[in-house]
Amino acid sequence: MVTAGIVGGTGYTGVELLRLLLRHPDVKLETITSRGDAGTAVADMFPSLRGATKLAFVDPARAPLDRCDVAFFATPNGICMQQARPLLDAGVRVIDLAADFRIRDITTWETWYKMKHACPDLVADAVYGLPEMYRARLRTSRLVANPGCYPTAVQLGFLPLIEAGAVELDGLIADAKSGVSGAGRKAEVHTLFSEAADNFKAYGVPGHRHLPEIAQGLSAMAGRDVSPIFVPHLTPMIRGIHATLYARLSKGVDLQALYEQRFAGEPFVDVLPAGSHPDTRSVRGANVCRIAVHRPQGGNIAVVLSVIDNLVKGAAGQAVQNMNIMFDLPETAGLETAALLP
Amino acid sequence: MVTAGIVGGTGYTGVELLRLLLRHPDVKLETITSRGDAGTAVADMFPSLRGATKLAFVDPARAPLDRCDVAFFATPNGICMQQARPLLDAGVRVIDLAADFRIRDITTWETWYKMKHACPDLVADAVYGLPEMYRARLRTSRLVANPGCYPTAVQLGFLPLIEAGAVELDGLIADAKSGVSGAGRKAEVHTLFSEAADNFKAYGVPGHRHLPEIAQGLSAMAGRDVSPIFVPHLTPMIRGIHATLYARLSKGVDLQALYEQRFAGEPFVDVLPAGSHPDTRSVRGANVCRIAVHRPQGGNIAVVLSVIDNLVKGAAGQAVQNMNIMFDLPETAGLETAALLP
Amino acid sequence: MVTAGIVGGTGYTGVELLRLLLRHPDVKLETITSRGDAGTAVADMFPSLRGATKLAFVDPARAPLDRCDVAFFATPNGICMQQARPLLDAGVRVIDLAADFRIRDITTWETWYKMKHACPDLVADAVYGLPEMYRARLRTSRLVANPGCYPTAVQLGFLPLIEAGAVELDGLIADAKSGVSGAGRKAEVHTLFSEAADNFKAYGVPGHRHLPEIAQGLSAMAGRDVSPIFVPHLTPMIRGIHATLYARLSKGVDLQALYEQRFAGEPFVDVLPAGSHPDTRSVRGANVCRIAVHRPQGGNIAVVLSVIDNLVKGAAGQAVQNMNIMFDLPETAGLETAALLP
Amino acid sequence: MVTAGIVGGTGYTGVELLRLLLRHPDVKLETITSRGDAGTAVADMFPSLRGATKLAFVDPARAPLDRCDVAFFATPNGICMQQARPLLDAGVRVIDLAADFRIRDITTWETWYKMKHACPDLVADAVYGLPEMYRARLRTSRLVANPGCYPTAVQLGFLPLIEAGAVELDGLIADAKSGVSGAGRKAEVHTLFSEAADNFKAYGVPGHRHLPEIAQGLSAMAGRDVSPIFVPHLTPMIRGIHATLYARLSKGVDLQALYEQRFAGEPFVDVLPAGSHPDTRSVRGANVCRIAVHRPQGGNIAVVLSVIDNLVKGAAGQAVQNMNIMFDLPETAGLETAALLP
Repeated sequence: MVTAGIVGGTGYTGVELLRLLLRHPDVKLETITSRGDAGTAVADMFPSLRGATKLAFVDPARAPLDRCDVAFFATPNGICMQQARPLLDAGVRVIDLAADFRIRDITTWETWYKMKHACPDLVADAVYGLPEMYRARLRTSRLVANPGCYPTAVQLGFLPLIEAGAVELDGLIADAKSGVSGAGRKAEVHTLFSEAADNFKAYGVPGHRHLPEIAQGLSAMAGRDVSPIFVPHLTPMIRGIHATLYARLSKGVDLQALYEQRFAGEPFVDVLPAGSHPDTRSVRGANVCRIAVHRPQGGNIAVVLSVIDNLVKGAAGQAVQNMNIMFDLPETAGLETAALLP
Repeated sequence: MVTAGIVGGTGYTGVELLRLLLRHPDVKLETITSRGDAGTAVADMFPSLRGATKLAFVDPARAPLDRCDVAFFATPNGICMQQARPLLDAGVRVIDLAADFRIRDITTWETWYKMKHACPDLVADAVYGLPEMYRARLRTSRLVANPGCYPTAVQLGFLPLIEAGAVELDGLIADAKSGVSGAGRKAEVHTLFSEAADNFKAYGVPGHRHLPEIAQGLSAMAGRDVSPIFVPHLTPMIRGIHATLYARLSKGVDLQALYEQRFAGEPFVDVLPAGSHPDTRSVRGANVCRIAVHRPQGGNIAVVLSVIDNLVKGAAGQAVQNMNIMFDLPETAGLETAALLP
Repeated sequence: MVTAGIVGGTGYTGVELLRLLLRHPDVKLETITSRGDAGTAVADMFPSLRGATKLAFVDPARAPLDRCDVAFFATPNGICMQQARPLLDAGVRVIDLAADFRIRDITTWETWYKMKHACPDLVADAVYGLPEMYRARLRTSRLVANPGCYPTAVQLGFLPLIEAGAVELDGLIADAKSGVSGAGRKAEVHTLFSEAADNFKAYGVPGHRHLPEIAQGLSAMAGRDVSPIFVPHLTPMIRGIHATLYARLSKGVDLQALYEQRFAGEPFVDVLPAGSHPDTRSVRGANVCRIAVHRPQGGNIAVVLSVIDNLVKGAAGQAVQNMNIMFDLPETAGLETAALLP
Repeated sequence: MVTAGIVGGTGYTGVELLRLLLRHPDVKLETITSRGDAGTAVADMFPSLRGATKLAFVDPARAPLDRCDVAFFATPNGICMQQARPLLDAGVRVIDLAADFRIRDITTWETWYKMKHACPDLVADAVYGLPEMYRARLRTSRLVANPGCYPTAVQLGFLPLIEAGAVELDGLIADAKSGVSGAGRKAEVHTLFSEAADNFKAYGVPGHRHLPEIAQGLSAMAGRDVSPIFVPHLTPMIRGIHATLYARLSKGVDLQALYEQRFAGEPFVDVLPAGSHPDTRSVRGANVCRIAVHRPQGGNIAVVLSVIDNLVKGAAGQAVQNMNIMFDLPETAGLETAALLP
């Protein structure tokens, strides 16, 4: 059994980690921390977990994280970088669901996240937790930067095209739509039901923190700098991301075959039959990215539709997948349930 | 392994049965039928199940239902009563998720369901599949009438009060609210998104088919005829029923203790702490009924709040629970996952 | 032209007042205040009003409220009672959309609202702004306590039955469901989209501030103390209240005729044909209460279905209706638009 | 007074026309037809209109359309082309809200709409009802092809860029998102609440009927053939379209100034301040298109955000605007109400 701890479990990625880890056949969840809610039973905050756990939130200072095999940080940005080192030194492997270790260039990170990085040296050690790109390195990693939700959907969608050198790298466009849970469980006016329901809007068009992460990933695929256009939107649903990707083809290619071959061995990427349009609900609660590829009017622009559940393949599920890889468990362990539909 | 078949699997209870049975550790799903969609792969109709099954819908005439241990009917009302007998004769146990065998009085059934009953003699054999009331009889039953969604929430909510003789039996009120999936996957104007979203309404106040089922259940608890008031409402969410029940107390009683004791051994009824208000989302996708009891202003009216997922404890999950009981499996087998929240 | 000011216009009742007053043919909106957002253009905060007004929020200390004919307080509870007196002394008529002047018994008010009342003497002067009950007094009132949203729907629903002495006054039940905008535009976790969407729950069953207001209103109708049961629920829609009311009939009565006659001359109460079920969307954006009455199974329990838009007939629209009455304008002036459907 | 008739008023554009025309100060609505619902009172089908009209649906054969000044066709595609000629001959001006007269090339129309055109000669006479492009011709037109909802949002969004010759015409991308009411009031499974709620998907990527209409419009602006990429999506809200447009700039241009100048005199196009992101709810129920322009990272790709209410500026409201122009009424008559927010 792998013993696990969760740091900062009162947000949506926290409760999703709980849902997944509590039924994981090879994991024992030892502890979960919360500064503000220490002493509160997990099931009192999240009644959906009544009967599933008797754990209570523990003050971080008292939590036996250093005795865990792995610690998941479901904390705001800037926390894991302050707490990771002693855990790593104690032999605990760390998976950060926030952004602290995602961007390899420290200056870029500090610019976008508006704080000084607390441990730049560890950034170099961290492995970006997108198994479809970095599985081999993840096996031996001790510190994993779990990808952002938008970056997961966008990178998986562009991956085959860029790897195959089939598209012009200038002018890649990612028009992405997210459910509201992506904004987290923090009380803010713009994510109130009465503001976000029956409404649709773009946001962050001048610049969104996931842009440098996406650019870094696409650049790694391409072997040169790539600067895509990224426009996120808020859509009135709880879970789900739908990325609609546009790329100019630079050579003839059988899109359907390209995608099917690239993801043939991937347990959590599903290429739909030609002509399909994936629903976000088809991945609700499931750790899978479903992708469809189109070439409208037979022209030279490829349109890729990529959907994930932002809290699962876009956060907690991918973190568990990474843990499975790190601890040599079956990659699908604890992640096999089907999406909830309707 | 129990071998199972599903008759009529293209509706919401069908896809929910698929989700549950495909991961049930003790069940092998042999076949699923559909008259209109025979030949279609299940995963083509429900992409949420891609990767989970290779089954295709089979024409009922060709489906090997008679070689199954159990057949689930996820069909419209009036189908199971026409097909159950040969299956029962072949030794197949039958669980009808529709209403054909729920009402013991044939005349009442025919009045409310507006058709002639095809096999009144089997009605007497059928066991009403509410384990919290009829578990012992369910163990040996060969034909189970799986309860309706509203009746499940309402009966479980009233059960302790009526069994204890603690309330006046005249004037019981069940004000119930359902998500739209309760109306099924049939194309109708009033359940279109643009009609049902951002809207709330009562319906069927003069009479709803679940009224005689509720009345029968409450009467059985009370040992005399009970005629409650039942007002169903449509609320703009996909899954979930919230029943708000009102009863005049006829004697002093500790409501909280009464409910906790009555359901102490029940794996799928959860009595919340005093003062609670259950969310329907706390049972989304889970086979559990959560209940809270109140006595506003210390008066003589008890208010019971009872929530279920209409497709799980109100349909497919309860059917699986009944199957577990019938086949002497652990009652919670295949039903242990936590609710999806948010 | 009536000159009007709005105090505290950044919440949902504020923006709804703006929508209504800006197109009112007999009103000139002079000023709108906000302590926190002084200097911000109204249309910058509410882009829905771009092109409709050039007003900016003004600091309350500088707003020319004392030169207005009428001031609407769209503030939190406890503000109007501190600011009304000088305005009244200056001859400004005041309509408080909050609760400061709704409850005539000061002790009751202080108990439920958990603060000391700043001007108990003015409470006696205030007229409760439910025109269907107090129209005559409203004509000459200088201080109006605009009713709460739930109380409007519940009182109008019970009014004909109680006035006619047709029901038992003990055990009246109001099971009410509200859209989320009723909770206001304050950032709180429980009204976030991801918490409130696809979810249904009761709240405040042990006691809700609208209970004493409802009890006071029903008592006034009955001429004796009435203590109803009031259970509010949160339903995942933006606007709308649906009150489902239950009462035991104490004598024979033609419910349909009773309601039609009582509301025959009312411009903003619409009694639906027998057998109807009003949708909340049928009043979305409109200043109307639609009511249907039922007597299930011909028994002795009357079921009344009463719907309003909580922000219109339940708040801003009723306030404008009261203003029309106070200033001898046509009662329907500025309130004639049809509901937005779908 | 302009006397008006509506042909086929039982869909969403029909009820929206009713809402707008019934309060239009210069219009008298004479008749509304429905083949299937003749005899039904309008207010019985749409209770939102109770009190606003006493009209009943009339069989088309008996409706006095030929005595109206203008007839609005809110019918499915293929109806107006069969009924327009006798009305036009009788001097009635016709506004078709469907697609029969939108596409000037008959072969293209017949290919996309899969039927034979009944009156190709009238197509040449028809004026495309986008006032921002064709106001002068609309003044004297007797037959107006009211634009589709997507085409309205997309064309208005691209108009200044293309007219100014500021963008590369190859590779224009329109990523558009629509609320579900755009699919109409027809009972279909994929627009059921339980299918469309809490879900997001693209559709029609290989080809959507609004593509040739958009292409025709952009080509007219450019003076040469333009073949954009158009990807529509379904988003879980009732009303609203959000078009996100991408274009490569071919020369230096001040985007903000360009848009503000182009639409300076337009009563129903609102260019937001630089850096803005329009909400669809800011136009809910209002006849306005709000637009914001961006140039992410100062690069050479312009991003235009264009929102409308698909039933108002995207259908019924624009039809009324066209009528106002045709009959020399103030262009804003009957269209001045603010959006409903929240």
